[in-house]
Amino acid sequence: MTLDVGFLGYRFMGKAHANALARLPMFFPDAPAVNRKVLVGRDEAAVADAADRFGFDRTTDDWSEAIDEVDVFYNLGPTHVHAEPTIEALEAGVHVMCEKPLATDLETARRMREAARDSDAIAGVGFNYRYVPALQLAKRLIDEGLFGEIYRVRGRCLQDWLGDLEDPWNWRTDEERAGTGVLGDVGSHTIDLARWLIGDVERVSGQLTIQIPERPAPDGDGTREVTTDDEYSAIAEFDSGAVGVFEGSRVATGRKADNSIEVYGSEGGFKFSLRRLNELRVLGPNDRGFQGILVTDPNDPYIDAWWPPGHIVGWEHTFVHENYEFLTSVADGTRYRPDFEDGFEVQRVLDAVQTSNETGRRTRI
Amino acid sequence: MTLDVGFLGYRFMGKAHANALARLPMFFPDAPAVNRKVLVGRDEAAVADAADRFGFDRTTDDWSEAIDEVDVFYNLGPTHVHAEPTIEALEAGVHVMCEKPLATDLETARRMREAARDSDAIAGVGFNYRYVPALQLAKRLIDEGLFGEIYRVRGRCLQDWLGDLEDPWNWRTDEERAGTGVLGDVGSHTIDLARWLIGDVERVSGQLTIQIPERPAPDGDGTREVTTDDEYSAIAEFDSGAVGVFEGSRVATGRKADNSIEVYGSEGGFKFSLRRLNELRVLGPNDRGFQGILVTDPNDPYIDAWWPPGHIVGWEHTFVHENYEFLTSVADGTRYRPDFEDGFEVQRVLDAVQTSNETGRRTRI
Amino acid sequence: MTLDVGFLGYRFMGKAHANALARLPMFFPDAPAVNRKVLVGRDEAAVADAADRFGFDRTTDDWSEAIDEVDVFYNLGPTHVHAEPTIEALEAGVHVMCEKPLATDLETARRMREAARDSDAIAGVGFNYRYVPALQLAKRLIDEGLFGEIYRVRGRCLQDWLGDLEDPWNWRTDEERAGTGVLGDVGSHTIDLARWLIGDVERVSGQLTIQIPERPAPDGDGTREVTTDDEYSAIAEFDSGAVGVFEGSRVATGRKADNSIEVYGSEGGFKFSLRRLNELRVLGPNDRGFQGILVTDPNDPYIDAWWPPGHIVGWEHTFVHENYEFLTSVADGTRYRPDFEDGFEVQRVLDAVQTSNETGRRTRI
Amino acid sequence: MTLDVGFLGYRFMGKAHANALARLPMFFPDAPAVNRKVLVGRDEAAVADAADRFGFDRTTDDWSEAIDEVDVFYNLGPTHVHAEPTIEALEAGVHVMCEKPLATDLETARRMREAARDSDAIAGVGFNYRYVPALQLAKRLIDEGLFGEIYRVRGRCLQDWLGDLEDPWNWRTDEERAGTGVLGDVGSHTIDLARWLIGDVERVSGQLTIQIPERPAPDGDGTREVTTDDEYSAIAEFDSGAVGVFEGSRVATGRKADNSIEVYGSEGGFKFSLRRLNELRVLGPNDRGFQGILVTDPNDPYIDAWWPPGHIVGWEHTFVHENYEFLTSVADGTRYRPDFEDGFEVQRVLDAVQTSNETGRRTRI
Repeated sequence: MTLDVGFLGYRFMGKAHANALARLPMFFPDAPAVNRKVLVGRDEAAVADAADRFGFDRTTDDWSEAIDEVDVFYNLGPTHVHAEPTIEALEAGVHVMCEKPLATDLETARRMREAARDSDAIAGVGFNYRYVPALQLAKRLIDEGLFGEIYRVRGRCLQDWLGDLEDPWNWRTDEERAGTGVLGDVGSHTIDLARWLIGDVERVSGQLTIQIPERPAPDGDGTREVTTDDEYSAIAEFDSGAVGVFEGSRVATGRKADNSIEVYGSEGGFKFSLRRLNELRVLGPNDRGFQGILVTDPNDPYIDAWWPPGHIVGWEHTFVHENYEFLTSVADGTRYRPDFEDGFEVQRVLDAVQTSNETGRRTRI
Repeated sequence: MTLDVGFLGYRFMGKAHANALARLPMFFPDAPAVNRKVLVGRDEAAVADAADRFGFDRTTDDWSEAIDEVDVFYNLGPTHVHAEPTIEALEAGVHVMCEKPLATDLETARRMREAARDSDAIAGVGFNYRYVPALQLAKRLIDEGLFGEIYRVRGRCLQDWLGDLEDPWNWRTDEERAGTGVLGDVGSHTIDLARWLIGDVERVSGQLTIQIPERPAPDGDGTREVTTDDEYSAIAEFDSGAVGVFEGSRVATGRKADNSIEVYGSEGGFKFSLRRLNELRVLGPNDRGFQGILVTDPNDPYIDAWWPPGHIVGWEHTFVHENYEFLTSVADGTRYRPDFEDGFEVQRVLDAVQTSNETGRRTRI
Repeated sequence: MTLDVGFLGYRFMGKAHANALARLPMFFPDAPAVNRKVLVGRDEAAVADAADRFGFDRTTDDWSEAIDEVDVFYNLGPTHVHAEPTIEALEAGVHVMCEKPLATDLETARRMREAARDSDAIAGVGFNYRYVPALQLAKRLIDEGLFGEIYRVRGRCLQDWLGDLEDPWNWRTDEERAGTGVLGDVGSHTIDLARWLIGDVERVSGQLTIQIPERPAPDGDGTREVTTDDEYSAIAEFDSGAVGVFEGSRVATGRKADNSIEVYGSEGGFKFSLRRLNELRVLGPNDRGFQGILVTDPNDPYIDAWWPPGHIVGWEHTFVHENYEFLTSVADGTRYRPDFEDGFEVQRVLDAVQTSNETGRRTRI
Repeated sequence: MTLDVGFLGYRFMGKAHANALARLPMFFPDAPAVNRKVLVGRDEAAVADAADRFGFDRTTDDWSEAIDEVDVFYNLGPTHVHAEPTIEALEAGVHVMCEKPLATDLETARRMREAARDSDAIAGVGFNYRYVPALQLAKRLIDEGLFGEIYRVRGRCLQDWLGDLEDPWNWRTDEERAGTGVLGDVGSHTIDLARWLIGDVERVSGQLTIQIPERPAPDGDGTREVTTDDEYSAIAEFDSGAVGVFEGSRVATGRKADNSIEVYGSEGGFKFSLRRLNELRVLGPNDRGFQGILVTDPNDPYIDAWWPPGHIVGWEHTFVHENYEFLTSVADGTRYRPDFEDGFEVQRVLDAVQTSNETGRRTRI
């Protein structure tokens, strides 16, 4: 059996997923066979060019038509176009991989979750950082109890891609299309990781900032108002009694991929940064300092599929692992995580951060 | 002229300040001459032994008597004994160096500030981390505008000296004597540094946790309730529009001296950790990455007094610098910073964090 | 035009090159088209399985037959089988990519170089570390003179894959098949990088060690003598007056991918470690400390082909870049570097290290 | 009993030792009492000023006279004035602490060792890096066998204090007064540490470089020839079968205190850099990565004398420890290490490196 797949979106995420699918046969030979059937986009020439490079059979500008033809639909477009095609696909029994965050607002996310609940299809959400080998190892260590009772998680994602006043306005700086700014874009990753590692959030205090309130219009004609946060901060209280501190920025001058997470508990903890994606620093109960572990041994998560110890993998490999697991779930009919339940729970936290920012009150999830 | 000084307190802080005074003549020959005259404490044998090692002429158990005899009074006792002797000294025109935080509560701190305002004496507060050479350099760079408009400060102090369930109850875990726990103890350092570097805080959201709610009684007989926070988190909004995220812990397994502060703005930023006290990582406007600067060059702050480049100094040196500046102000009659105005402003933030924790609301300072 | 290629060898290096060829069309669309035509190996079942995963049309156990059918021949076998097929290919005008080191001894390497000189075909040698983006950036900075007159290069490669006494004997521990041990295996990489960056070596003092003199036989029956070095050290004097210090180990407990190179000169320098393949630490003339640069910006070498800033690449990407350049040279008929001239020069240094080790004398290249 | 001490030399080393003596009573109360009696130097005004700051009773320009008056003589002058006063002191039964290296050449060092052998006085040599707490911990771990059979030691000291072409000629760049350059100056530290940790060196290959062959004369009048090495490299073979690689530089642009040592063996190893003097990175038999240990716990070497965990000490503290041990040996009549036997053994290695550099041959110690 070969799965026919369609993609909506052919830029950054389109390339990342297309590459992942292309690499599965050589490195994960037991993954389901996939046929890249149809690529959806509005700019005909650009889509045709992408389809050619990404290995798709054909293109269309009609996502509805694409959904009709495929077994699996990848929604890789801007956030405000997540809901409609995704719901239609799920209603048609077509499996969906939807990029994060699920939606621009909580109600839309709830409708997407309901569609997933009502469908037999698998509905995955693109929190690919769960599939970093080092973070898989961290999860394993937490679950084994190595760190004892967890006290605290600290997550942040600092970038500077909008750090320059001349960086232009784009859909991510527009509340209508993106919902939130850095909060939804990369804060959703941080919150998903924290939930996955530590459990559910109960209450949150949040703060959003727009440090650069207007930007050059993309067409070069004057400026446009920025309506989404370029920095966020949050303090989260978890059901378990643990506390989380989260931050994100798009204007953190000089920071790139400063996407890090730390957890500690009564017996130890770990530290991780995406900048050093192959490393996990671990403090166990008998350690005096953090061990800088290179997570490239054969029994480390997913590593036996790749290269001998010491030969590091990159960011894109997380998409290979994610698609391997997702497509295996699709083929086997088993539950895939993170699914729309996870995506919705993350959206609830995003929403509570926004509410807390507006009301000035600690907000229950 | 030689300044007669008296110390209340002869443990950790007593040793740190006594050492600083003893080292001034060799390294800062223009510092005022000091006579370590009287050491105040209740345990006669222990005080006598300390006086002998710290070079004090005599001891007493009566701080009031000591104040009568000295030009400068160092209040190095637990927080709940800061106010009374300090106010008496200031009323008597005796200069005061008081350890941080100023008081167990805001009202007491206000009374201390009023006493300082009403006195001609110098009233310093022991925020010694301002005197780390690397942080003096950071302050210089901020003031020169190297980092542009400041967006964000991140400060934390993680320790594990109460990380073990068997670590006993002590005055710092008791609300009556300490006011707050880790918040006042080391959070006050973080907040003072942030104010010094960035300016005043306008509003704050705070969260306090007691992860280990009871501890062995110090006399070994049963357990006692812990009534101060062992972890705190806060989001601060500064007058300038910058945002601060602050954290502290006494139960952060495996962390020691993980006392760090980062600032970034529109043009760059810096990172600092007390663990690597001689280093400042700096990102300037033309840099692609943080420069790891060893702050041991002759024109770095205070370094010409010490050793040639590359010969690192330690934590204790901050006390030498602090006392050099403080005693010079005393001798010259010039304003010393951080003074009780600074100490009071920090206390207002501490108080607001507590209020926010209790009410669940963002709290105006 | 599509280039037909054949591989001799289907294990680690076979997989690395096959993957590189498979990835070229999506990321380097202007690379010549390649058809993976024939895979050569002796174990029929293993070769068939590899051919299936690596995307080869067919298999054979006769390399001579393969050479007849292809435009490009990849020699990815053990060192002692480099010479014969490679020379035959070159004599037939078939382009060759040969893994490093060129040969088990200098005379054989010389014969290979002569074959390359006598052929119109391109003869590349697999020093893929030249194609690390961070090292390409380093090369660019050296060539621009940023570091002034170069004084020193320090290169090392520490691994522990033979660190355990129970790690079995294999072809790399056998002088007949490997020539040297860690010296040729990874020392050749270090020496090639140093030559590429700094220029030719004039004299060398070398030292080889066998710390673990016997190992379990691969068939489990008793032990076999180790006849190649598991550690080497060398001091090299370059034509330019610079000095190099080189080291390698296979028994460096706990080290993996500790493959690093540092260069400094009169105005600055850089540091690099394969463990953090996406980073280059650079000290320029006006810097007080090394800048930790993440080499993932669009104008960094090869990066525009991959992902946005901050999304790190892995070890395998060096093979994509290497094959992109090699195949482009093949298609365009331009010189490819590193070629057999480079491979031979490296072999001369390896040979001189061995000679110096035996004679105890500094040895002229 | 109070020990009367005299110092020859009042610059860098004079200050370091005077400070150490001044600090002993407060931190090491069981150290012998010391009276700083006489300071020897030729520049009357400068010596008088130093004596005042360093706490000496009086000054003289006649070292012979000073030796007559004291129990302990500190020879802190340039290398070429080590021998004569030291030998006279030892012959007079006066204890000696002599800075490193012992002498400008091996024969002089031998005469000094003979004088020490013939005397009942203690003769210490100032290899203070043995007294870094982190290195004391490293020594303890090696001796306990944590790292198994030692394979390799890597030591280097990179500085840039003569990195600028305009840095003037001085006694350390003059073969007559210094013997060697960076080799003797800081290479002697590296070699002493290696011997202390691993054992005696059997054979060595050495290489010396003068990258900057002339420098401005100190009087500003023209230039003078540099006759000592500004860089050295050496490969050492130890009696035990371990191998050492050593390097040093005074022209390593941007490097300060880059004084590091690494050791590894069959079961693990450690890494240390003077830049992070309070840290030891340790890999034990069950570790996957190096633990970054902050060596500030109460049971770490010498730490209980200082501050609570996490409060780092500086470079100067090594002199306090060194003098504590040395004076205790003086008072108790016990052997002090490193003594002139150690100093002589280091000198033999220095001499062999020079010989090897000249002859081009591996040289037996």
